[in-house]
Amino acid sequence: MPETLISVDLSKPATENEYLHNRWHPDIPIATWVEPGADFLVETVDWTGGAIANNDSADDIRDVDLSTVHYLSGPIGVKGAKPGDLLVVDILDAGTLKGHEWGFNGFFSKKNGGGFLTDHFPFAQKSIWHYEGMFTRSRHVPGVGFAGLIHPGLIGTLPSQKLLDTWNAREQALIDTNPTRVPPLANPPAPKTAHLGKLGKGDAWDKVASEGARTVPPREHGGNCDIKDLSRGSKIYFPVYVDGAGLSMGDMHFSQGDGEITFCGAIEMFGAWLHIKVDLIKNGMEMYGIKNPIFKPSPITPNYKDYLIFEGISVDESGTQHYLDANVAYRQACLNAIEYLKKFGYSGAQAHSILGVAPVQGHLSGVVDIPNSCATLWLPTEIFDFDIKPSSAGPTKFIDGSVDMPLSPDL
Amino acid sequence: MPETLISVDLSKPATENEYLHNRWHPDIPIATWVEPGADFLVETVDWTGGAIANNDSADDIRDVDLSTVHYLSGPIGVKGAKPGDLLVVDILDAGTLKGHEWGFNGFFSKKNGGGFLTDHFPFAQKSIWHYEGMFTRSRHVPGVGFAGLIHPGLIGTLPSQKLLDTWNAREQALIDTNPTRVPPLANPPAPKTAHLGKLGKGDAWDKVASEGARTVPPREHGGNCDIKDLSRGSKIYFPVYVDGAGLSMGDMHFSQGDGEITFCGAIEMFGAWLHIKVDLIKNGMEMYGIKNPIFKPSPITPNYKDYLIFEGISVDESGTQHYLDANVAYRQACLNAIEYLKKFGYSGAQAHSILGVAPVQGHLSGVVDIPNSCATLWLPTEIFDFDIKPSSAGPTKFIDGSVDMPLSPDL
Amino acid sequence: MPETLISVDLSKPATENEYLHNRWHPDIPIATWVEPGADFLVETVDWTGGAIANNDSADDIRDVDLSTVHYLSGPIGVKGAKPGDLLVVDILDAGTLKGHEWGFNGFFSKKNGGGFLTDHFPFAQKSIWHYEGMFTRSRHVPGVGFAGLIHPGLIGTLPSQKLLDTWNAREQALIDTNPTRVPPLANPPAPKTAHLGKLGKGDAWDKVASEGARTVPPREHGGNCDIKDLSRGSKIYFPVYVDGAGLSMGDMHFSQGDGEITFCGAIEMFGAWLHIKVDLIKNGMEMYGIKNPIFKPSPITPNYKDYLIFEGISVDESGTQHYLDANVAYRQACLNAIEYLKKFGYSGAQAHSILGVAPVQGHLSGVVDIPNSCATLWLPTEIFDFDIKPSSAGPTKFIDGSVDMPLSPDL
Amino acid sequence: MPETLISVDLSKPATENEYLHNRWHPDIPIATWVEPGADFLVETVDWTGGAIANNDSADDIRDVDLSTVHYLSGPIGVKGAKPGDLLVVDILDAGTLKGHEWGFNGFFSKKNGGGFLTDHFPFAQKSIWHYEGMFTRSRHVPGVGFAGLIHPGLIGTLPSQKLLDTWNAREQALIDTNPTRVPPLANPPAPKTAHLGKLGKGDAWDKVASEGARTVPPREHGGNCDIKDLSRGSKIYFPVYVDGAGLSMGDMHFSQGDGEITFCGAIEMFGAWLHIKVDLIKNGMEMYGIKNPIFKPSPITPNYKDYLIFEGISVDESGTQHYLDANVAYRQACLNAIEYLKKFGYSGAQAHSILGVAPVQGHLSGVVDIPNSCATLWLPTEIFDFDIKPSSAGPTKFIDGSVDMPLSPDL
Repeated sequence: MPETLISVDLSKPATENEYLHNRWHPDIPIATWVEPGADFLVETVDWTGGAIANNDSADDIRDVDLSTVHYLSGPIGVKGAKPGDLLVVDILDAGTLKGHEWGFNGFFSKKNGGGFLTDHFPFAQKSIWHYEGMFTRSRHVPGVGFAGLIHPGLIGTLPSQKLLDTWNAREQALIDTNPTRVPPLANPPAPKTAHLGKLGKGDAWDKVASEGARTVPPREHGGNCDIKDLSRGSKIYFPVYVDGAGLSMGDMHFSQGDGEITFCGAIEMFGAWLHIKVDLIKNGMEMYGIKNPIFKPSPITPNYKDYLIFEGISVDESGTQHYLDANVAYRQACLNAIEYLKKFGYSGAQAHSILGVAPVQGHLSGVVDIPNSCATLWLPTEIFDFDIKPSSAGPTKFIDGSVDMPLSPDL
Repeated sequence: MPETLISVDLSKPATENEYLHNRWHPDIPIATWVEPGADFLVETVDWTGGAIANNDSADDIRDVDLSTVHYLSGPIGVKGAKPGDLLVVDILDAGTLKGHEWGFNGFFSKKNGGGFLTDHFPFAQKSIWHYEGMFTRSRHVPGVGFAGLIHPGLIGTLPSQKLLDTWNAREQALIDTNPTRVPPLANPPAPKTAHLGKLGKGDAWDKVASEGARTVPPREHGGNCDIKDLSRGSKIYFPVYVDGAGLSMGDMHFSQGDGEITFCGAIEMFGAWLHIKVDLIKNGMEMYGIKNPIFKPSPITPNYKDYLIFEGISVDESGTQHYLDANVAYRQACLNAIEYLKKFGYSGAQAHSILGVAPVQGHLSGVVDIPNSCATLWLPTEIFDFDIKPSSAGPTKFIDGSVDMPLSPDL
Repeated sequence: MPETLISVDLSKPATENEYLHNRWHPDIPIATWVEPGADFLVETVDWTGGAIANNDSADDIRDVDLSTVHYLSGPIGVKGAKPGDLLVVDILDAGTLKGHEWGFNGFFSKKNGGGFLTDHFPFAQKSIWHYEGMFTRSRHVPGVGFAGLIHPGLIGTLPSQKLLDTWNAREQALIDTNPTRVPPLANPPAPKTAHLGKLGKGDAWDKVASEGARTVPPREHGGNCDIKDLSRGSKIYFPVYVDGAGLSMGDMHFSQGDGEITFCGAIEMFGAWLHIKVDLIKNGMEMYGIKNPIFKPSPITPNYKDYLIFEGISVDESGTQHYLDANVAYRQACLNAIEYLKKFGYSGAQAHSILGVAPVQGHLSGVVDIPNSCATLWLPTEIFDFDIKPSSAGPTKFIDGSVDMPLSPDL
Repeated sequence: MPETLISVDLSKPATENEYLHNRWHPDIPIATWVEPGADFLVETVDWTGGAIANNDSADDIRDVDLSTVHYLSGPIGVKGAKPGDLLVVDILDAGTLKGHEWGFNGFFSKKNGGGFLTDHFPFAQKSIWHYEGMFTRSRHVPGVGFAGLIHPGLIGTLPSQKLLDTWNAREQALIDTNPTRVPPLANPPAPKTAHLGKLGKGDAWDKVASEGARTVPPREHGGNCDIKDLSRGSKIYFPVYVDGAGLSMGDMHFSQGDGEITFCGAIEMFGAWLHIKVDLIKNGMEMYGIKNPIFKPSPITPNYKDYLIFEGISVDESGTQHYLDANVAYRQACLNAIEYLKKFGYSGAQAHSILGVAPVQGHLSGVVDIPNSCATLWLPTEIFDFDIKPSSAGPTKFIDGSVDMPLSPDL
């Protein structure tokens, strides 16, 4: 039986746990060390550290303090790892902490977080998804169920001081272009809610808290990539920037669509575990010319193959032409899919939630045909309890509207 | 044997063919009419109408007159089709015109077309790909071969006058923001090189030529989507904007990666044919809430499954942070893959070409984690004659550099 | 454009074609020689050489002279091939001869051929399948359509005299155990209807005709394997038994299920072509310990994945227990599937035909659990125009019985 | 969290557990009742009830008392189930009992059990497979590792008295044809080692023990089908023969190839659990014409796709011709694969074990081409740590023979 390297106590505040941290900084103390070749279990809390409850109100989504996220398990030190190496991580398995077979999906208020479709869904909403073995369903989104593809939304190595400084500088430069924007362009360090693992209060703590990079964006070390395919069975090659590598992980998703368009987020697992194996390729960064992680997908994935595919181009909702903007194009593809699903009886919020949690694919289908980018949203048809394919008879309203996702207007 | 509705003569200039046209306008005369339910063959020329030759010089790529493209076969009228209907198109099959078993891939000069990676590959280059049955290889890019996934890069219906006016207005507005940019932000109508099918010279011709939308971007009618998955076996639902729908197609690709990042283009088939079936869903646009085409993928596709996946984030080559820009992120993922392939001996141009023509996938993996978009480039490992997976031994230079892609510097 | 090495004239009797033969013997003259590494086209007639017509009577199936089959194109000599080598054959592509877009499927009369389910379907029946591009449908079997997976039912190399003698001896020994059985246990040489390519009449002809092995069974050289997965894109490694290898092929199938349970046969293509590439692995038989062909599947295959799977065990229709007999088990699985499909309105014959022609899988699921073998029949649900999955509502008779397959009782 | 309906104590003899039984009989008391629609966990012991140890000797395989198998968890009663209904079983998930991350594979002595290749491997041998998350490797079989596809080898419903009588009669009739055969043709009831769940000793016990069908073969109720695809995520429709259905399960496999050719068996899990959901289709047997279980495969399965495929025909090892015998044909395909793998350094036993435990496919490729059946063995190439594909260079002995599987000669 593999050893549990890091365990979590879901009944305690995340901030009281020395094996959790919510910032990136080279001076966050290594929680525990392992040898190359070791495999072990790591337990994780949800990305908010327990702020979202299994209930029928979206108030907690509306009111969450986003400066506290994400609570990560680690950092794990790998003996002998040096800057320039590649850390090879096998995700041997992943699952649910017993007794916590549920996760949440939500949309943030535009005033507190926002998201990809925030102009269309400006208020906090929530759906709860229950696991039935390897499948999931929601009491707030009827008529749909699918196999999960459990993966860490966030997994990465510690940055060097130099890399950290680069991050802070380039992100601040972006913020400075519009510092009062809501939602913000980026998140600067937020010392007050920093949680730094074993690091005791003092000067070191103050430095790390004031410099520690927020965990929201993905960066050169991996981090919050939210790639649904970093799932159980995949193999990831991470750049190493500090001695020991410092691998941390969390933000476990039971299932997610490409893009994590709902932002809050995928199906966010309340409690989860990972079975991880680590190894090293010495000097691998230079040998293979690698500056961002690369990975190989799992041999076991949901093999849905009957998709309905929606196109979007980079002309926005107001009819304005954008130049090869894949974000605008993907947003249109998502909006097109939502309109389509509404014809079968779903509310817009429910359709939106499905795109956030089901194993949809988002492809950059055309990126050169000026001025229009073309993106496609691939919706698996087999996840629905009814037939959603077009026919000459027109759509049937299978969903009667009797249940919807809780909504919490801004106060 | 299905009837050949439109045939092409590859020995004659495209401009002398009344069944070809290179602009979108409701007044381009229907080339030929069919009944709903009919299936038939359509032959096509390459998108440049024969301007690119099977040789070892990229001069023709450098010098091509891009105002002439794309030469499309059609428009085909479907009896009974009315605005608001959906035109259901089955691509029953597709193939090569006998004796023309080759296609080209290239990069435009930055001064004449440009492209996704034009800052890295500013000069015209070309590679020729030969077909070996359903597979393809290039004499300019050794060590790689794969099954084709033949598809029309461009297929769509005629716009209404109102829709056409919208296109021209919104694209001109974009051009007006930087009218002297090279490459341009968008392409306005170009009357001089318009080819308008059966339409005879005169006032009508002048109007159509001066208003006719260029075929470069994808739009609400489909058009130049360059979606590799619109392949033989797929089923597409097009919005109908004019009586008879007016279906045209061309720009046939033997194979392409997501994004068609090389712009010129996929493996562009010198001569090809499509076997098409058409049908109607009356009032389908309103019934299903459709404004862009939707489609179902083929039951027959290359089932490569062992990928090496490259991540990119929206920090550009100079280190500048962009806000959730999926284009920047995908460009980084592509550049990361090119660097990786160079370690095995490929030139940058060869690696670039592989990403343009092989069945790579481009996913919008994360679109919400401010400020970084995360895109992934999925490179099938099975298409190489050697093992490209990372190992502790490091890469082997399987490609010895003795052949490269022809390059033609700007004059 | 690849050269057409062997072409056929479908308007002439197969027996007048010097590039066809219907027996296996080392002295059948090589039709034409190629170099290793060559690729070329080969045209083929249907396995009966044109005896079955595209009409609505099964009389031709009932009356066919089975001693005449199979008409093969070849033998093709590969220069330098020696006994003990492996002949590597890439099936680069395959298709239909223009103007002949149809094939037949049938059941033989029990008195003339029989088959896997001949006790249940003792009389001749026929269904005609038309191709719609890469798809097929039948006017005799409504409600079902699917993508073809074109493959040669029969492809193999010439036997040596020693191997041929072994074949004749072991098969005669089996026949001798019950020489009057109808249908027979095996088919001995049948000189009268031998067709031996270029071999002129005379003593040599008489010897080859009297010794030439029938083409019905698969043997150590490949031959009539009827493996649906030897499809376009696959790569086969054949043992070489004579100088030049002597590769012949024919019996082209547009689609077939595992087992070819209908015997007559798959969807038998009236006229077809193959694009083949040949190469050699010198001494490969000994190096790899090979005595039967091995092969690698195509990267392009129909990716149906939603199956309904029927179990069968080795207890026969009368309730008699057989010892680990996989044939009995697979027969039960097939009969179970036929009963199931009848609940949706199909006649038994139609259901039987579907199992013969659609891409069903037949698995040897359990072969050790005495006394019962367990076989499974995998029926893709996506090929039907309606939903065939079980539900609490019970089956709907989607098929109204207004059309059936022609039947021709014995005379 | 789903309720654990049946738990097992691996430290106690299986015979002391009232929720286990090793015979099929309608009078075995229902262990526990559930409502239709319920989902719950069931724990299982290995099929021998703990007789095989994680060590390096095959003595326990040689000496096992096969009259004791299989120990099944159940029977579970489903309220309202009546004869003629279909019991719908979703295998929602399955896994390993913590601390027992290993399983065994073995060959029985020909004198005690035998098996598919017992004439080639007549002595007891064993390999131990350890789980690394969802993957497995063996210290006795180097160079190979793969993802598991956990499934119950045995799952079924209780027979009615009438069905049981039929089983006993037909199997005894087979035994009577050669009652002294070793291994036997079938296994009659064996009262001495019967374990009958809650049933207390007395007349009822004696009747059930003397009539109770052995669990070895699959039958009309499902039972020991050893179908690798009845895996987590699949949905099975079982015929119901008694009130309450009486569902039992066990013989859990971490992975298995088609056929379970090693007989002892797959990778036999020492301790495992299933998450099951049950439901009913009233009168489903008649409505759908079902007499054996049918099932739908999981949406999540290992998607290995690069296979090397071995053909076998029904000519046995001595050169004797058999009439359309798929068992002989599959045996030849397996022997061909074993010979091939030996060229890479594996012992015959190791190669044999790989075919028993890895996700190989066994297809009934041709069943009508008299006199030769054609079977194919599909070996996934991706499970090996090295390249096993043929090339002109010949095979490399990657495996150096320093470890082999323990063998225990007969005493």
